[in-house]
Amino acid sequence: MDATEWMKKAIELAKLGANYVHPNPRVGAVIVKDGQIVAEGYHKYFGGPHAEIDAIENAKGINLEGATLVVTLEPCVHYGKTPPCVDAIIEKKFAKVIVGTQDPNPLVNGKGIEKLKSAGIEVEVGVLERECKWVNRFFFKNILENMPYVILKVAQSLNGAIATRNYFSQWITSEESRKLGHRLRREVNAIIVGKTTALKDNPSLLLHELEGKTPWRVILDTNLTLPLELKVFIDETRQSTIVAIDENLPHSRKEENLRIGGVKILRTPSQNGLIELQPFLEKIKNEFQVSAVLVEGGAGVLSSFLRDQIWDEMQLFVAPKIIPGGKNAFEDYTIDSLEYVSEVKIISISPVDKDLHIIAVNPKSEFLSFLQ
Amino acid sequence: MDATEWMKKAIELAKLGANYVHPNPRVGAVIVKDGQIVAEGYHKYFGGPHAEIDAIENAKGINLEGATLVVTLEPCVHYGKTPPCVDAIIEKKFAKVIVGTQDPNPLVNGKGIEKLKSAGIEVEVGVLERECKWVNRFFFKNILENMPYVILKVAQSLNGAIATRNYFSQWITSEESRKLGHRLRREVNAIIVGKTTALKDNPSLLLHELEGKTPWRVILDTNLTLPLELKVFIDETRQSTIVAIDENLPHSRKEENLRIGGVKILRTPSQNGLIELQPFLEKIKNEFQVSAVLVEGGAGVLSSFLRDQIWDEMQLFVAPKIIPGGKNAFEDYTIDSLEYVSEVKIISISPVDKDLHIIAVNPKSEFLSFLQ
Repeated sequence: MDATEWMKKAIELAKLGANYVHPNPRVGAVIVKDGQIVAEGYHKYFGGPHAEIDAIENAKGINLEGATLVVTLEPCVHYGKTPPCVDAIIEKKFAKVIVGTQDPNPLVNGKGIEKLKSAGIEVEVGVLERECKWVNRFFFKNILENMPYVILKVAQSLNGAIATRNYFSQWITSEESRKLGHRLRREVNAIIVGKTTALKDNPSLLLHELEGKTPWRVILDTNLTLPLELKVFIDETRQSTIVAIDENLPHSRKEENLRIGGVKILRTPSQNGLIELQPFLEKIKNEFQVSAVLVEGGAGVLSSFLRDQIWDEMQLFVAPKIIPGGKNAFEDYTIDSLEYVSEVKIISISPVDKDLHIIAVNPKSEFLSFLQ
Repeated sequence: MDATEWMKKAIELAKLGANYVHPNPRVGAVIVKDGQIVAEGYHKYFGGPHAEIDAIENAKGINLEGATLVVTLEPCVHYGKTPPCVDAIIEKKFAKVIVGTQDPNPLVNGKGIEKLKSAGIEVEVGVLERECKWVNRFFFKNILENMPYVILKVAQSLNGAIATRNYFSQWITSEESRKLGHRLRREVNAIIVGKTTALKDNPSLLLHELEGKTPWRVILDTNLTLPLELKVFIDETRQSTIVAIDENLPHSRKEENLRIGGVKILRTPSQNGLIELQPFLEKIKNEFQVSAVLVEGGAGVLSSFLRDQIWDEMQLFVAPKIIPGGKNAFEDYTIDSLEYVSEVKIISISPVDKDLHIIAVNPKSEFLSFLQ
């Protein structure tokens, strides 16, 4: 095994942090002695020990002097919820630290690497850098643009229909695709749907059998017209439901009832009956610590995100079928010239049962330029 | 080199027949002596020598006794435009014949193979059979279903738009995709477009710089409302233009003018203002020897072919962009339940520049079941 293999293992560990760590980054670490991995660690939950510390703790009984620490993200030098990792690394007398990618956080950003070097530790930076950045793309967006990372999820036919014209959509894609799409929920800490989807599908928006922290369930309902009987308003986890309504909507008995039941009401600006996305996203980031959102539809909400060019990633599941005259994910907004087309950058295509799973990113998301 | 390699070469040769051979099959052949290819041949044009004969002629001066003939399609036993190939093969004393696939034509269908065997020649059938059938899928459809093979061509965005809502479509896909799409024209012997496409794009529907026989250019214009100034009506190759109009449309000066200019008028049944596809296709097969058509759009015509389930293959070029509120290739027909979805079978996905080229077939086209 070499540095690349060790880093692969560290990345796997980082992923275990899933959505427990938001708004912290996902970080994994392994300790290598005599060419063998002797301890593993990862950041398990927000406020918990960092990956480096977790690995060091897991190495108890082993003398780490002269060992190599392999970590997906640059070790921190600042006091946050925990003391700086760099100090622990120096104290344990590691000979070498292999870092996947530098921390974009201005509080760290190279300072961790510098401090290790000053202490005489050899530092190698950039092993599987692309993968290490990808696993923390949410964190990079949060730090560099102070906004949540936005994923648009679309399940469509080959000709781009997300439902028949009269809203039948169960099911267009295969069971396996739906499972994979569902698993995206445990990556983010907020799921967003529009009023029509909430009304037509009455979805629970939960993780169901998946392990993970329940993400916020956010419903955009400008004028608070949805019925109180919806699952998200009455089920046991209704404390995780946020309804975004127009900031100037008169206070009502309905709003009060929801609030008493435990549902969060977020008052935010709207225009032409639609929630304005930029201030709304800033609010859910600041007030609910949302670092990544999964927009599950429908066409109204997806069209709004596209129109405002507020999206970083698309997760498309494409079924090998044609639905003539169907609804399109982006039909609620029309351009009159090809000059206004939204370019996407496809970064992977994989078969899922008979469907295609396409991951694309927004070429305008600068912090994703490492994907070039 | 072994039988598979020889057959690959024969298939390459078969493809050179392109659209010159319609309604005949495309056939390629190589002659092998002492493990080496010593002569090559293919069917070059309708009525011309068959591939086997072409290869034998190209082997002049070489003693073929004991040699192996490798041919993509079963040699014929019947007198058509040329004498039976089987007789020539026996006469030349070939020791072995390797056949890609049996001829579906009831006049041949195993009889060629039987006759060779009776003459003491070793026959091996089914080398690269899938590829040999694919190269002659048009012929198989013609013979087995007495109908032209139908290819629907669609150039669309990732969300299934073939144009903006106000008909801008130049260009959605890359230059390389458009070239590849254009090259499909030299595979077929008829291109079909609808009235709206003819009017909005005024396309010439020619091969341009490509080598090949000019395919019929077929315009569906039920009530003959298109202006006489369109390129297809006035250019030098207007003799290759067919206008399909309703069989009961009163004769007009316009029709007469077109006819005098050399344009073919095809009167055929229509319903609700749309040409009925089944009788129309039978007519162009019988009256104009059309064996394969490329349907280039627009949405009206593509929707009709899908609604009537008259299609065998889709050639999709998908650009990595989102065109919100765009036109869909199949929007002129609406289903109200997912039960009426058209399933497609994707048989290949290849990158073309930044686009995806997806080839899919109709799982209901029984003669294509060899693709399973």
